[in-house]
Amino acid sequence: MCNKDSYLKPGEVLNDLLGFSNLSIIQHPDKFNFSLDSTLLANFATINKNTKRIIDLGTGNAPLPLFLSLRTTAHIDAVEIQDELYDIAMRNIEMNGLQSQVNIIHSDLKKIHKKLKNKYDLVICNPPFFKYTPTSNINKNDHLTIARHEVLATLDDVVCEASKLLKFGGIFTMVHRPDRLEDIFAALSKYKLSPKRMQLIYPRANKEANMVLIEAKNNLTTCGLKVLPPLVVFSGNEYSNSIKNLFGNSNKKPLIFQT
Amino acid sequence: MCNKDSYLKPGEVLNDLLGFSNLSIIQHPDKFNFSLDSTLLANFATINKNTKRIIDLGTGNAPLPLFLSLRTTAHIDAVEIQDELYDIAMRNIEMNGLQSQVNIIHSDLKKIHKKLKNKYDLVICNPPFFKYTPTSNINKNDHLTIARHEVLATLDDVVCEASKLLKFGGIFTMVHRPDRLEDIFAALSKYKLSPKRMQLIYPRANKEANMVLIEAKNNLTTCGLKVLPPLVVFSGNEYSNSIKNLFGNSNKKPLIFQT
Repeated sequence: MCNKDSYLKPGEVLNDLLGFSNLSIIQHPDKFNFSLDSTLLANFATINKNTKRIIDLGTGNAPLPLFLSLRTTAHIDAVEIQDELYDIAMRNIEMNGLQSQVNIIHSDLKKIHKKLKNKYDLVICNPPFFKYTPTSNINKNDHLTIARHEVLATLDDVVCEASKLLKFGGIFTMVHRPDRLEDIFAALSKYKLSPKRMQLIYPRANKEANMVLIEAKNNLTTCGLKVLPPLVVFSGNEYSNSIKNLFGNSNKKPLIFQT
Repeated sequence: MCNKDSYLKPGEVLNDLLGFSNLSIIQHPDKFNFSLDSTLLANFATINKNTKRIIDLGTGNAPLPLFLSLRTTAHIDAVEIQDELYDIAMRNIEMNGLQSQVNIIHSDLKKIHKKLKNKYDLVICNPPFFKYTPTSNINKNDHLTIARHEVLATLDDVVCEASKLLKFGGIFTMVHRPDRLEDIFAALSKYKLSPKRMQLIYPRANKEANMVLIEAKNNLTTCGLKVLPPLVVFSGNEYSNSIKNLFGNSNKKPLIFQT
């Protein structure tokens, strides 16, 4: 593997993925930078010895495949529609020597199951969080807008596609905003995925939740949702112990807290 | 008001409702004792100057009307189907001198809206938490069973009735178990109530949630659910500060922690 800097294009920067790993990630300060939600989602996802095949819907610059490669040797497909992000994602995988494990697919996530012959044990997604309406005062061609607003894919699209990609018994896992929980439960119900694990992320112990991690199973059972202990991000002026533990108590400060 | 003990029947006991109030509550150790869920629900409920009329569906021995009387002068109707609990509820209201504010109705909560001429600003309910099936190994005539299991009223019944009792813009609030969240969101959606506030109750900071407080509005809007800060019940060997604050830092230990 040659010098990692040689993978950079103008305007891009190289960040450590986590303090304790050797993985690096190319980011573009103006276009796409992963944040705590991806880190927490990769940590939350249920992965076990039966997890052989994973797909990441809307991978961006591929933070989720990078994180997941630290937890599993399962094959990971990752779908990205935007040209520039696909290009960065490809370089992130190559630069970290993960070509044999991670396959980046340049495509819309909608109907992607028609192009793929396999079913998956785990479908993971950090989707756009915000509803998009034609009157929204945003630039719908902007990279950030597409990553954050439901311009190209809605929550319904994502859950629909996940349900088609999953094996029977497979798991769909997602990070989202708590103010969309009503829509999330409705979409899971519509596509026959049963919520099984949920965790609320609170910026501080006395603040409202600003993220939710949710996992649903493709197995026709109902009920039995577990709500995991609260995950509080900050304690005083520091990250909480839960967050520090997530990063292996590294002294290096990961550059990922851009919530 | 004469001596409170004179209101007791054999087997019953008299407890302080909260350390800091003068209210007392008749309980029956073998039949029905309110617990932390009612206390938290009464505290969670949105009550403001526009709250003129409240109804409690399945009031048991009437802990919710007693608690609410500490927060509001609004009229409170409270429905109870079980004879013995209705009898205790009536005595609890009379013993505490609340007859002019609280009206206990001896009835099934199902279709109760047909017997009442008013609509309500707030419908509150601490319903049976557990699903009941004819094969459940429980005694369906038992008081505790009826209070805890969906023998006489299901979640769907409760939400359906709430939707019929509410004014437009009125609020439905409930305590339940997190493992029923899938059903709760489905029922609220079915009856066009929009979830607005939710709070998870965790027994300890590192434990799964074991209760959820949820509030929904009868106003046809969607989304915008707020998930309030986590409420943790115990810290070390003591109640947490959140719980202590709820009881006004009273030194009297309330006899209500029977979760």
